[in-house]
Amino acid sequence: MTSPFKSVAIIGIGLIGSSVARAVRQALPDVHLRAYDADPDVARRAEQLGLADLVVAEPGLAVSGAELVILCVPVGAMGQAAAAIAPSLRRDAVVSDVGSSKVAVALALRAALPLASIIPAHPIAGTENSGPDAGFASLFEGKWCILTPDDDSCAEDVDKLSKFWTGLGAKVDLMSAAHHDMVLAVTSHLPHLIAFAIVGTASGLERVTQSDVIKYSAGGFRDFTRLAASDPTMWRDVFLTNKDAVLEILKQFTDDLAELQMAVEREDGATLYDLFDRASTIRRGIVE
Amino acid sequence: MTSPFKSVAIIGIGLIGSSVARAVRQALPDVHLRAYDADPDVARRAEQLGLADLVVAEPGLAVSGAELVILCVPVGAMGQAAAAIAPSLRRDAVVSDVGSSKVAVALALRAALPLASIIPAHPIAGTENSGPDAGFASLFEGKWCILTPDDDSCAEDVDKLSKFWTGLGAKVDLMSAAHHDMVLAVTSHLPHLIAFAIVGTASGLERVTQSDVIKYSAGGFRDFTRLAASDPTMWRDVFLTNKDAVLEILKQFTDDLAELQMAVEREDGATLYDLFDRASTIRRGIVE
Repeated sequence: MTSPFKSVAIIGIGLIGSSVARAVRQALPDVHLRAYDADPDVARRAEQLGLADLVVAEPGLAVSGAELVILCVPVGAMGQAAAAIAPSLRRDAVVSDVGSSKVAVALALRAALPLASIIPAHPIAGTENSGPDAGFASLFEGKWCILTPDDDSCAEDVDKLSKFWTGLGAKVDLMSAAHHDMVLAVTSHLPHLIAFAIVGTASGLERVTQSDVIKYSAGGFRDFTRLAASDPTMWRDVFLTNKDAVLEILKQFTDDLAELQMAVEREDGATLYDLFDRASTIRRGIVE
Repeated sequence: MTSPFKSVAIIGIGLIGSSVARAVRQALPDVHLRAYDADPDVARRAEQLGLADLVVAEPGLAVSGAELVILCVPVGAMGQAAAAIAPSLRRDAVVSDVGSSKVAVALALRAALPLASIIPAHPIAGTENSGPDAGFASLFEGKWCILTPDDDSCAEDVDKLSKFWTGLGAKVDLMSAAHHDMVLAVTSHLPHLIAFAIVGTASGLERVTQSDVIKYSAGGFRDFTRLAASDPTMWRDVFLTNKDAVLEILKQFTDDLAELQMAVEREDGATLYDLFDRASTIRRGIVE
């Protein structure tokens, strides 16, 4: 496939950034690819891995000439990353990102780049691992990538960015940033928050040792807490930038959990059965 | 390997019962195996699948002559199942089970079978699927099977039951029923309760449709809620019979989650980072 962008800059070469780089190299080999990472060790590793045509030491060098710039940094660092590229950005460049919250990122990018063509994006793909070695070219294959253009977005650029992600194997969907943040609060942010919490709970018990937890984690704990191995900086930023949606969903969840708790306390088997049966039916629907 | 028991009866031929049957047929082919299920459709299917030498229509027929009887029914049905086999049980038979809570099961079995050699057991293995078709012979390979003998248990029978489970590929551990129930409340019961709750939450939202949840479940929700597809009857019984331990752990978890909630409300990034970093480090330890 021919890429809708001839030159692409990736700012931040962690799990997602390095996966984008690998996918571009494989699926869109005509693209001239430059990469930058604020951490010199990560940049060096990206160079060793051959992830881009040029791994550069300054963000300005990465974006000068780039038709598409993708910011792949923690969402809390988006504003700073955008400000750092501002002076060197092509006037017609499309600026996008891969962050897990979209309202806050759109605001931060717009503040730093008042005149740029900004189209925020979020590929719904990842693993619990981090860093340039953790990425792989097929990460986005068959996965959704959500674009959240606003009323000011250039339709042609939205179309080009959609083609770019489709070229990397993703399926593209468009929605408002606010709806994205609410959907992801349920399908991703709350599960991560709970996973972090329950690992903390399990490690702080007096009557159950950590060795007990590790030994018998096949009973559900191991699979259930995989998400808690994820990068703490990334997730701190997600919760700081999607606070309102997360708190709204969390409130609903704690209410639902309290209902189950009360049913256990009352030994109300009929209520437990009904709630479990309903959840089990819905969950099986998700798989099919 | 030669089985320490020449004849074995399996009462209840669901996921676990049918897996025990398959594993016995494969690893301990000298065993004469009988099976019974209270549901005639399940019994018929077990016969079609050739899961036992004899699939019988009465529990008494299954256990008459059996040196080992394994009750593989929901924990709330253990007492009734034990009472049903009482008149036909060999005087020297070992009676065991595979239930997920052990204090309540031990009491129920002892009440129904005051003179039998009872050694409760719990293989920490399973999937979210149910029924005789869902089982497979390798389910217990490399998994822990916890036996919870008490002071009255016959040491020789504990030894024989340990050898039996080792013969099916499991690693055997011994602990008190009370400690088992506390450990499993953390490593299995609470994760299941949370998974059931969050699927309920996700399905009841006004601003996020079920189709949104399904479409974007790769963000964590899908893996996180696999446990919620589990059998509702089995899990209702687990929570009714391990109430105290579950409520104790649940209280600790809701306190920990409230701490995270407050940190999000206050936009306290340092606390979020510390808690996530600690959980992430611990979780990586579980994998290694």
